[in-house]
Amino acid sequence: MPAKTIIDVNCDMGESFGHWTLGDTADAALMPLISSANIATGFHAGDPNLMDRTVRLAKEFGVGVGAHPGFRDLLGFGRRFIGASAEELVNDVVYQVGALREFARRHDLRLQHVKPHGALYMHAARDEAFSRTLVDMLRRTAPDMALYCMASSVTCEVARSAGHPIVREFYADRDYDRTGSIVFTRRVGALDPQRLADKVLRACVDGKVETVEGDVIDIDFDSVCFHSDTPGALAIGEALRAALVAAEIRIAPPAIQG
Amino acid sequence: MPAKTIIDVNCDMGESFGHWTLGDTADAALMPLISSANIATGFHAGDPNLMDRTVRLAKEFGVGVGAHPGFRDLLGFGRRFIGASAEELVNDVVYQVGALREFARRHDLRLQHVKPHGALYMHAARDEAFSRTLVDMLRRTAPDMALYCMASSVTCEVARSAGHPIVREFYADRDYDRTGSIVFTRRVGALDPQRLADKVLRACVDGKVETVEGDVIDIDFDSVCFHSDTPGALAIGEALRAALVAAEIRIAPPAIQG
Amino acid sequence: MPAKTIIDVNCDMGESFGHWTLGDTADAALMPLISSANIATGFHAGDPNLMDRTVRLAKEFGVGVGAHPGFRDLLGFGRRFIGASAEELVNDVVYQVGALREFARRHDLRLQHVKPHGALYMHAARDEAFSRTLVDMLRRTAPDMALYCMASSVTCEVARSAGHPIVREFYADRDYDRTGSIVFTRRVGALDPQRLADKVLRACVDGKVETVEGDVIDIDFDSVCFHSDTPGALAIGEALRAALVAAEIRIAPPAIQG
Amino acid sequence: MPAKTIIDVNCDMGESFGHWTLGDTADAALMPLISSANIATGFHAGDPNLMDRTVRLAKEFGVGVGAHPGFRDLLGFGRRFIGASAEELVNDVVYQVGALREFARRHDLRLQHVKPHGALYMHAARDEAFSRTLVDMLRRTAPDMALYCMASSVTCEVARSAGHPIVREFYADRDYDRTGSIVFTRRVGALDPQRLADKVLRACVDGKVETVEGDVIDIDFDSVCFHSDTPGALAIGEALRAALVAAEIRIAPPAIQG
Repeated sequence: MPAKTIIDVNCDMGESFGHWTLGDTADAALMPLISSANIATGFHAGDPNLMDRTVRLAKEFGVGVGAHPGFRDLLGFGRRFIGASAEELVNDVVYQVGALREFARRHDLRLQHVKPHGALYMHAARDEAFSRTLVDMLRRTAPDMALYCMASSVTCEVARSAGHPIVREFYADRDYDRTGSIVFTRRVGALDPQRLADKVLRACVDGKVETVEGDVIDIDFDSVCFHSDTPGALAIGEALRAALVAAEIRIAPPAIQG
Repeated sequence: MPAKTIIDVNCDMGESFGHWTLGDTADAALMPLISSANIATGFHAGDPNLMDRTVRLAKEFGVGVGAHPGFRDLLGFGRRFIGASAEELVNDVVYQVGALREFARRHDLRLQHVKPHGALYMHAARDEAFSRTLVDMLRRTAPDMALYCMASSVTCEVARSAGHPIVREFYADRDYDRTGSIVFTRRVGALDPQRLADKVLRACVDGKVETVEGDVIDIDFDSVCFHSDTPGALAIGEALRAALVAAEIRIAPPAIQG
Repeated sequence: MPAKTIIDVNCDMGESFGHWTLGDTADAALMPLISSANIATGFHAGDPNLMDRTVRLAKEFGVGVGAHPGFRDLLGFGRRFIGASAEELVNDVVYQVGALREFARRHDLRLQHVKPHGALYMHAARDEAFSRTLVDMLRRTAPDMALYCMASSVTCEVARSAGHPIVREFYADRDYDRTGSIVFTRRVGALDPQRLADKVLRACVDGKVETVEGDVIDIDFDSVCFHSDTPGALAIGEALRAALVAAEIRIAPPAIQG
Repeated sequence: MPAKTIIDVNCDMGESFGHWTLGDTADAALMPLISSANIATGFHAGDPNLMDRTVRLAKEFGVGVGAHPGFRDLLGFGRRFIGASAEELVNDVVYQVGALREFARRHDLRLQHVKPHGALYMHAARDEAFSRTLVDMLRRTAPDMALYCMASSVTCEVARSAGHPIVREFYADRDYDRTGSIVFTRRVGALDPQRLADKVLRACVDGKVETVEGDVIDIDFDSVCFHSDTPGALAIGEALRAALVAAEIRIAPPAIQG
């Protein structure tokens, strides 16, 4: 993989709900740092008022807008698996994508992508039946809307073989194991923004990442993701941006071949 | 008003939820009797799985598909007023219309109309600020999507003066008072389908309706509505259809000037 | 096991929600046929107004009142597993039991039992950590409230060894396999009430049940359960009652040793 | 009114939800400053896990525990009126009070009081039918549980004439008008904690408060309330406590005559 000269940076946005705000960083502070926003669509977070504001905010900063549908689980923030059929879950996705698409239409924007949230993302990454039903639906209703997915996931393979545009992600604020999978580690203390920026830069330039086991593995991806509710998200986003800019890697929405 | 030779008949559809079904009549039995379906969009009733099935069912029978957004109130079936701002409520409508539009897209259909449900419909009928915000939004996102409304309502006037297409309704299963407003009467016993059909026929042919006070008033409208959860809905729908057919009045979706 | 001369018959009650009703049989028709009611507590079905009415109805017929807590999943009717921790799920149970207990207090009744619903019941039957946390909580807050459970389940064993009162159930409208477990079979057509009544009678008198494999196995239990949303629930309940009465087996709430 | 030597200080607690936290101040920081906690019960805020933690926290600090039921409106944080009947709303209250009472039982605590939240509190303050139905219910299910209410409200009068214990509130972080009613003013900037503490002290010692019109009126009350989501809540609570302690006014739960 040649060193990247351009890269997408995506972040979850609009994950507050009603009277409650998420994380210690306002979306308005993060939006200038990214090129693609995954906007929560009301099932795990987000509400119609916030979706409208977040789409407007993304437009203001020229950030690509994507739907970020989750399990119907406000209490669990979409991080709990719910035992539903592939068809049911895809209906949930259709519903949520449509809702966000309507706000985008209101602001004269097109949806750039869809990225399932939390447990739904992980479920898609592992479950072929769900990934297949999801991709079949997108082929029909949104053939030009990229599906964001983990690099070595079932979702990625299913979408690719169906000819649906994908954007493979690299997680700035997650660790990798030697299989190239994300490791969920319970953290003590905050992440070091500079260390994360270095990690991302190495991944962009050399296509390598150091694993939790201490190995160095190859990694290929189209977008860098960090989470707006990671403590210190603003510092992480700023360090990331600074490192990429310094390396003359342009941050821009992904080129999508529909 | 000349006697009608063609009339739209609309009915609320898809108002079950999950494991629960509404009313004693299946939507599949009513769909052949109508020309426009107001499909519940999940806030007062309806769910993604049902929306998908109902859109498919409407398509099968060539019935025009409309969004039927309500207050966010499953428990109250959207029949309780919630004190929200016009902007908040319109965001709720955008969300719900978009959700249904996506299911329509999946089935290669366009949304024909939007009709607020229950307390939201009545709120629009009376509240100029809400009607104005609603119509402004529709002008922008759905200029060709007719707004169903009561004949002499604020909604109707606001939409008309904004140049937005409207479809004025006549309620088969509701009584009118002398001002032309619907009267909510607590009923004893079921409605007589034939009496309702006669009432509708008279309204279509003569443009007249008898009020609860015993007067006869002029009435003008573009669509006849009956409710799928009115006890005996099937018999009502059948009597209506038979009466209209016998009078050589064709039942068809409204012609909409966008 | 000696032939029974007295048996509890329990049924899920109050599983409608707001404007929607469940099944083809009204609770008021079933209540005279049973001795214990599992009243839905709002998470999978039921709402405060219905809980109040159902508790009152149970009181009117001298039926024992139990809480029927479920997963927080109205759309899935509590039949979908949600990946939550034992502690989270027990907090959900505390919440729901308390809500029903307050309605019971309003009507001068004590709660007789608790019976988890649907997927939560099955989860408890298999998951020791959840059963243990559940029983620990009940030991503390409701030591005299029987826990309804499947005869050969983890729940049953955990509660027994903790000294918590249990009521083991026999399912009239479910089939058993040779291990004594319930088999979920997709049915064609309605159940035959008389056949079910015969099955229950044999279980009460001989302590035997025929399995789906054709074997006859021993079965021990303290209560017979049938479901109010099984098609033909009324006929099933009536046949059951008639068969038990004819055999001089008295239908009465379980004797609970707290 | 003689100068107070003892006063209750109450605060809303447990108003986060799932993954989201409310306000900039953790409940754990406020709990040492107050004598009574109004714990959110899940309809407008709060969830079973948080209710369990908040009850435990209150117990740790010897703070009196009360139920803080709201309208069924997570999105609106219970601050939007919902047009439901008095009976429906009281059923909502029964449900929520029971849920919290069960967590209190788990921690060997008795509920001290009930205080409706937000729009439900204001609705009770104005609507006699609701206040009457609410008080009738409490007389029956919770005769020793004080009802917190505004000093000159309908709730207060109805409860008093029914002989139900009340606790009249003085709002530290709200302004009063000359009729003794709370004024909802949209604020610019944060409140001055010292100014608030002085206001409360004067009210406790002299029984006087200065109104937004500049008048000084008599005020009588049994408890001082401040809101945990008021910006700067911690500083307000600390200033309040310091002022009361300096004036040798003891902060303690109200004496309730059931």
